[in-house]
Amino acid sequence: MGRSIYVAPAIFNCSFPDTGNAEALLDYGSSDQVERYARPLLEGDVRSCFALTEPDAASSDPTNISTRATLDGDEWVLDGHKWWISGAMGASYALVMAVTDPDAPPHARASMLIVPVDSEGFEVVRALPVMGHSAGYGHCELRFDSVRVPRDSLLGARGEGFPIAQARLGPGRIHHCMRAIGTAERAFELMCMRAGERVTRGERLADKQMVQDFVALSRIEIDAARLAVLHAAWTIDTVGKNAARQQISQIKVQVAHMQQAVVDRAIQVHGALGLSEDTPLAGMWRIARALRFGDGPDEVHKVVIARRELARFAA
Amino acid sequence: MGRSIYVAPAIFNCSFPDTGNAEALLDYGSSDQVERYARPLLEGDVRSCFALTEPDAASSDPTNISTRATLDGDEWVLDGHKWWISGAMGASYALVMAVTDPDAPPHARASMLIVPVDSEGFEVVRALPVMGHSAGYGHCELRFDSVRVPRDSLLGARGEGFPIAQARLGPGRIHHCMRAIGTAERAFELMCMRAGERVTRGERLADKQMVQDFVALSRIEIDAARLAVLHAAWTIDTVGKNAARQQISQIKVQVAHMQQAVVDRAIQVHGALGLSEDTPLAGMWRIARALRFGDGPDEVHKVVIARRELARFAA
Amino acid sequence: MGRSIYVAPAIFNCSFPDTGNAEALLDYGSSDQVERYARPLLEGDVRSCFALTEPDAASSDPTNISTRATLDGDEWVLDGHKWWISGAMGASYALVMAVTDPDAPPHARASMLIVPVDSEGFEVVRALPVMGHSAGYGHCELRFDSVRVPRDSLLGARGEGFPIAQARLGPGRIHHCMRAIGTAERAFELMCMRAGERVTRGERLADKQMVQDFVALSRIEIDAARLAVLHAAWTIDTVGKNAARQQISQIKVQVAHMQQAVVDRAIQVHGALGLSEDTPLAGMWRIARALRFGDGPDEVHKVVIARRELARFAA
Amino acid sequence: MGRSIYVAPAIFNCSFPDTGNAEALLDYGSSDQVERYARPLLEGDVRSCFALTEPDAASSDPTNISTRATLDGDEWVLDGHKWWISGAMGASYALVMAVTDPDAPPHARASMLIVPVDSEGFEVVRALPVMGHSAGYGHCELRFDSVRVPRDSLLGARGEGFPIAQARLGPGRIHHCMRAIGTAERAFELMCMRAGERVTRGERLADKQMVQDFVALSRIEIDAARLAVLHAAWTIDTVGKNAARQQISQIKVQVAHMQQAVVDRAIQVHGALGLSEDTPLAGMWRIARALRFGDGPDEVHKVVIARRELARFAA
Repeated sequence: MGRSIYVAPAIFNCSFPDTGNAEALLDYGSSDQVERYARPLLEGDVRSCFALTEPDAASSDPTNISTRATLDGDEWVLDGHKWWISGAMGASYALVMAVTDPDAPPHARASMLIVPVDSEGFEVVRALPVMGHSAGYGHCELRFDSVRVPRDSLLGARGEGFPIAQARLGPGRIHHCMRAIGTAERAFELMCMRAGERVTRGERLADKQMVQDFVALSRIEIDAARLAVLHAAWTIDTVGKNAARQQISQIKVQVAHMQQAVVDRAIQVHGALGLSEDTPLAGMWRIARALRFGDGPDEVHKVVIARRELARFAA
Repeated sequence: MGRSIYVAPAIFNCSFPDTGNAEALLDYGSSDQVERYARPLLEGDVRSCFALTEPDAASSDPTNISTRATLDGDEWVLDGHKWWISGAMGASYALVMAVTDPDAPPHARASMLIVPVDSEGFEVVRALPVMGHSAGYGHCELRFDSVRVPRDSLLGARGEGFPIAQARLGPGRIHHCMRAIGTAERAFELMCMRAGERVTRGERLADKQMVQDFVALSRIEIDAARLAVLHAAWTIDTVGKNAARQQISQIKVQVAHMQQAVVDRAIQVHGALGLSEDTPLAGMWRIARALRFGDGPDEVHKVVIARRELARFAA
Repeated sequence: MGRSIYVAPAIFNCSFPDTGNAEALLDYGSSDQVERYARPLLEGDVRSCFALTEPDAASSDPTNISTRATLDGDEWVLDGHKWWISGAMGASYALVMAVTDPDAPPHARASMLIVPVDSEGFEVVRALPVMGHSAGYGHCELRFDSVRVPRDSLLGARGEGFPIAQARLGPGRIHHCMRAIGTAERAFELMCMRAGERVTRGERLADKQMVQDFVALSRIEIDAARLAVLHAAWTIDTVGKNAARQQISQIKVQVAHMQQAVVDRAIQVHGALGLSEDTPLAGMWRIARALRFGDGPDEVHKVVIARRELARFAA
Repeated sequence: MGRSIYVAPAIFNCSFPDTGNAEALLDYGSSDQVERYARPLLEGDVRSCFALTEPDAASSDPTNISTRATLDGDEWVLDGHKWWISGAMGASYALVMAVTDPDAPPHARASMLIVPVDSEGFEVVRALPVMGHSAGYGHCELRFDSVRVPRDSLLGARGEGFPIAQARLGPGRIHHCMRAIGTAERAFELMCMRAGERVTRGERLADKQMVQDFVALSRIEIDAARLAVLHAAWTIDTVGKNAARQQISQIKVQVAHMQQAVVDRAIQVHGALGLSEDTPLAGMWRIARALRFGDGPDEVHKVVIARRELARFAA
């Protein structure tokens, strides 16, 4: 496909998944890779995608993937099936995680490869509809059918796919949380404006305590979420990504719930209008639901958080 | 439009809004109206719709509608704007609530009229998309532009529109609750099947306590909802619609929350698959959200429930 | 101790733990045991207690108990430590679960013994204070120091302690749930009466939507709980205790949460008065909390419920 | 009573209500009052109490109080009835809010008076038991029967009682929130330690996902609460008490709920032990419940929060 009519303008480069890909390339790439892939991304000339998730592997456990990359002379040959690959349409290249060493220990089986989307055998099967939204959000299903890339397409070392994915996901999660706070603030504004305008039985919705309850809880939850995200970001900046892992898991759970709760209340104040496409709320509702499992479901993060806490108190 | 390619087969006649319309026609219609409108509905030869909700009036307060019907000789002339009118496409006729006596007290201002959809000036503007599902669910926007119907198109007495709508909505709510329980049971099955199949980190989801928590809470909530709906139905059958109003408001709140919670958990167990159209869950998610405000939002029902209880204890 | 000034009148025989003990004696006792122990209990002449729980064993797993009973000639000799034994003060005898066969499989290690409380070595150490209520609720700590009872004090067969305890607990749980519904209804009445009387900023609490929210949710939850308990009781009566185990676990979780939520709201409407002993609410708050783990914590019941449901869908 | 055997040591001076009283005296007191009352308080030589709440007035609306102070020559004569006056036993003096100008507008009717507890007619009726804890927490019921104090006992201006009380309560609320975070952290530690030690069915509680869920949610909620309280404190320090009112109302609601939820989970992990006095959890449970309505119930703060937010969006 290569550059196409779908190529997004430079302003999209603060979007998922380009932010995370740029960080991964800068952290693990050779100087040549930085020049060829990171620079045009940062300059807004191209977009990219990140191909990890597969239909037959729980995305909470990336050691289960089955896409294979085998060396054939000076080339890697990829075969496999991925889905929910955001932004694949119009992307210039993909970072693809594939098994290169099936007999290695689970966390050393996979490597990360840079694969141009116009490579032969690289098929964008379809954009997956989300919540009935036929156009979806550009989350694509991909197939690799003997896709060949040069031997030096490896990002980082052979077998280093898993740690690269992990390093990429932590900051990726905080970006998602930041976007979710913006979404929630917008839903909050819409809720307050509607409550101020809509009159029923002679009283504005804004004057009814049940609506005031929605507003107060939403303000409390949004502010708490923002402070937690700022704290996690400050921890990354001052102590590093690794030290911030607990906070990142915490905000992932907290912010996803907050976002869904706030959008739910905003829809309730709008009634049927909130399900229509006449406001952004219906779109927010679809996105909010996805954050509860995207980049690790609530449940996986909660287990991780609890184990770290419990370990502090173990005899 | 009249009968069209969209006419649903007889099996749909246990669906909304035909069930409620048939009851209203049998309760309030003349023998001629029963013969012309109720019989073909019950025999599955036609479908119908119910046109109450308007864009500019809070649907929780139907005394606010502004669609007008004025007598001109032997005909009623209708002008107005309605939306979220389910099943209007393919319906044979609509029950339309319109203001006939603007100077009467609020609850006596409106009347109910039987209006064939192929009447001149009866426009189905569009099917409203729901949650980005472009086809929507056949919830239509309608306009009436000088639509003329004979004087005897009145269902019940002049000014009786409000009580007919109320009488129709009570049983309509219990039908919605029954459908919601079926939806929740189906979501529950999908959740359990997925949990039994999906393996992550060497363990089935079904063996993880956080998923067991979802399953147990869902079973408790579904069973509680079913018993409450059966109890409300038994009250209608034994003591009457009016005596069951408190129970109907109660199940409306309880069942809508239960349905949303169960579908939410089922989606969480499915991950991204749950947002796709490859399972019925995404469709359920859209419908579940609507029941929280359709036929009276949670908040209105809660106020009504509380006032009745508090009145029992007033000095 | 034997009969003491604490002996409760006959009216207490519908109370915990006499109801369950009477059932166990009728189901498993010899005709002599029924005559000597069950009859005076049912006639209200004596009270009894049930001694299972131990400080060093999770009460959710009664196979872990360590109280021992060993045969010495024609007598059983008991040694051990029990606590939270309700009604031990003033009881005539205890049903004591003790390990008789430590080498048997876990569920066959224990037996049930009938032990008069005036036996030598049977010590009521103290009544445990509950939530700072120094008198507590007669939940006692007991010690058995070489307590001797005749060989025929065995209730049921040797090694049958675990199934007797289980058979006894099922109906015991439904009795607790019935009492909890009564408690919740009383708290609800107090909440409504207070809301009707108390005026703040010129308006009765009953006229404020946030209080109406409390009232409506409480009515919905109490009614749902009552229907679920009635359904479980009907299942026991028509199909048997064993077939009703799923429902009993379900109501145990549902009713305990309902009771705590309703009492919490009633306290909130009373403010500081709700924490004083001037209303029964503070006492209800202590009891309500206990039901969340008494006779099996929420979590154990939820796992049991989920496993049964998931088994229905297993491939 | 005066100084008595109950006088608390200096270390208690960071406790409620001395912290708030010291601030009020420093902000509103004459130099003589600061010397006589604030200095010994800050040096830990005496304790004090704050007498606002009355049995017959909703504490959420302090304009309703009926304790009267009338000038008789050079003395104020106090008559009235107060309760839930923390720390009255052993206090050296009370700040008493009383109506001095019944015909003034509601917010100017009351004044604040400094009243030594050994004044004739100053009766400590009893310490109110809390949740059945007979000793209670030193929340006392007081009666003033013609208590006489000199004319210069007025703190601030005549009629300034309401603003002094408000100024005092804001910082008082943040102190309560800080203590609640400490309480929650301690409950969290106890929960984690218990989970690490207790084994049931061959597995530590710490290894069960339902307990991990408790731990993870508690950590998320405690950290979110701490950040919100720190933010409110920083706002007070940088912008002032008045500008921080919205944040203070927000943390009052958020922290009270967090504290109750965390203590609830810690008790659940302890089972019956958690209701005994063998751990501090039962005492925490009583205190946690009180914070949901003390210094303004959740509902009043939520209405206040919502109105400020909604006003930002009003047309």
